[in-house]
Amino acid sequence: MGDAAGVGPEVIVRSWADPRIHELCQPIVLGHPEVMRRAAQLVGADCQIEELTDVSQLGEARPAVNKIPCLSVVGDNLLEVPRGTIDGRTGRAAYEAVVRAIDDTLSGVFQAVVTAPISKAALHAAGHLYPGHTEILAERCGVDDFAMMLYLPHAEVPRCPAGLGVVHVTLHIALRDVFDCLTTGAVLAKCRLATRVLRDGFGLVRPRVGVCALNPHAGEGGLFGDEESRVIAPAVDQAHSEGLDVTGPFPTDTLMGRARDGEFDALVAMYHDQGHIPLKLLGMHRAVNITLGLPIIRTSVAHGTAFDRAWQGSAEPSGMVAAIITAAQLASRQTAGHD
Amino acid sequence: MGDAAGVGPEVIVRSWADPRIHELCQPIVLGHPEVMRRAAQLVGADCQIEELTDVSQLGEARPAVNKIPCLSVVGDNLLEVPRGTIDGRTGRAAYEAVVRAIDDTLSGVFQAVVTAPISKAALHAAGHLYPGHTEILAERCGVDDFAMMLYLPHAEVPRCPAGLGVVHVTLHIALRDVFDCLTTGAVLAKCRLATRVLRDGFGLVRPRVGVCALNPHAGEGGLFGDEESRVIAPAVDQAHSEGLDVTGPFPTDTLMGRARDGEFDALVAMYHDQGHIPLKLLGMHRAVNITLGLPIIRTSVAHGTAFDRAWQGSAEPSGMVAAIITAAQLASRQTAGHD
Repeated sequence: MGDAAGVGPEVIVRSWADPRIHELCQPIVLGHPEVMRRAAQLVGADCQIEELTDVSQLGEARPAVNKIPCLSVVGDNLLEVPRGTIDGRTGRAAYEAVVRAIDDTLSGVFQAVVTAPISKAALHAAGHLYPGHTEILAERCGVDDFAMMLYLPHAEVPRCPAGLGVVHVTLHIALRDVFDCLTTGAVLAKCRLATRVLRDGFGLVRPRVGVCALNPHAGEGGLFGDEESRVIAPAVDQAHSEGLDVTGPFPTDTLMGRARDGEFDALVAMYHDQGHIPLKLLGMHRAVNITLGLPIIRTSVAHGTAFDRAWQGSAEPSGMVAAIITAAQLASRQTAGHD
Repeated sequence: MGDAAGVGPEVIVRSWADPRIHELCQPIVLGHPEVMRRAAQLVGADCQIEELTDVSQLGEARPAVNKIPCLSVVGDNLLEVPRGTIDGRTGRAAYEAVVRAIDDTLSGVFQAVVTAPISKAALHAAGHLYPGHTEILAERCGVDDFAMMLYLPHAEVPRCPAGLGVVHVTLHIALRDVFDCLTTGAVLAKCRLATRVLRDGFGLVRPRVGVCALNPHAGEGGLFGDEESRVIAPAVDQAHSEGLDVTGPFPTDTLMGRARDGEFDALVAMYHDQGHIPLKLLGMHRAVNITLGLPIIRTSVAHGTAFDRAWQGSAEPSGMVAAIITAAQLASRQTAGHD
């Protein structure tokens, strides 16, 4: 459910109206049933919240499309938190819900986790000092080598057969701190993760991965920085020698258009905005976050809590729909692969 | 004409076929007439190169559209340089042509300068140690306070009434060096330059300028860097107190979509790729460079020499057409303003 004071509850309720998600999976909300009920009322949704304390209560029958099963994770005094505010109580409840989702997915109750937005500040106010969901997931799953892929489905980038993903080498850090974190090993790890998800998750036989340069004009032959030859190119060479279709580093201002036009299946970006600026420009509302390197499938909406627009009933649900559909598709391929 | 070994000559010849440029101005090439003749032959253009040693030879009559007047700047042994190569002879000739264009525009012979791409490496091989055209222009015009605006005409961004420009605080430097160059004074100067060109050059009464953050999520309240509050916000405050419609800093990954959707007339970007990634994605072939802060009007194509594709006759001329049209429009408003 994400942060109860943000747009999470309403985008979840509105996403239920999209028939595609019910064809692909059985979504279940983890959160406060009363918060979900209020969200349904807010948007005038024709659906009921079906409170569960255990998933087994769902039974084998497929529930009606207008029922939203909600596994109860209520937190402390959650209903008292004003809408659109940062509060440790919403932060704690959001944390408890995601931890339960992770644990129940690791144990096989769920096949994938989809997260609605949380507030880092609320998380911190609750004493959970993580930069975001991804780091909670990595820690809980015992994984060091993970990455965030921002992904646009095929419909948003029609010339990319499996959509377009951008994997980030660094993410939620100051731009000034990027240089210390940018190592050949880190770039190589992201090239491998990008290839793996495109192959195993999206079914591409030989995924084409383009690697972004760090500096303008890819350093213009060393005139504007040397990270291209010193750090990035050795990672590309190593990936290539492992048989991966990884090329670059390319000047990023023209690489993005080449990717949109179908030349690559994924890109590896060196820092947050390098990947987020073009992908949000291409498909603001339908971008999906996919966490790579976890033992479980996890997608997320790419937008935040939007506290300033929350609980007005106007939040756009297409990002949540895309995140659910993408998770279901990844899970279905994983299941197929296990047969 | 730019670098004779690059795509400059052929995009110039091909741009001549666009009737709009002849309605708006009388373009004159500065370069080697024989190089231009070969380019015309290459692309099968139905036009003649009319060699001039002085612009007065053109006379008062408007020349036929299929005549390309070429003010002869021949360089040394220019015809011997192989196509698509870096060479000091092409670098020197390109330098001499642009210097003549600047001087003749400063003295009123021309009303604007439009530049075709040059090679920095060829310029350096000729002993002219400039990073690019812009710095030659600034030095020759005796200007310290200048900036590069990457500009998309209205046709490329239909919701922006006067098109969309991005002014860069830093440009052709390593990303690592951006932090030392990013001062409140530099950001403020670019806010003023952006406002001025939109008002005086594009005729907007109250141009709306959005300022990009440097860090992801605009620093997330100081969690990911402090340049937003320490450097950028004071510049925005100062611009605001001068009566300019300058706002920000905003998270850049969502700001770009807001600008495309018509919320701003120009943006101020902190570094090269921050502005170039989204603008090239929105209008790769039709982006125009405009140099702000000069006493003369100067536009340029936004692409490079493309040595790997030069002299094959397939280079896309729409960037050159847009650069000529934009220069003519700016010149016409300047002339009108003088009446």
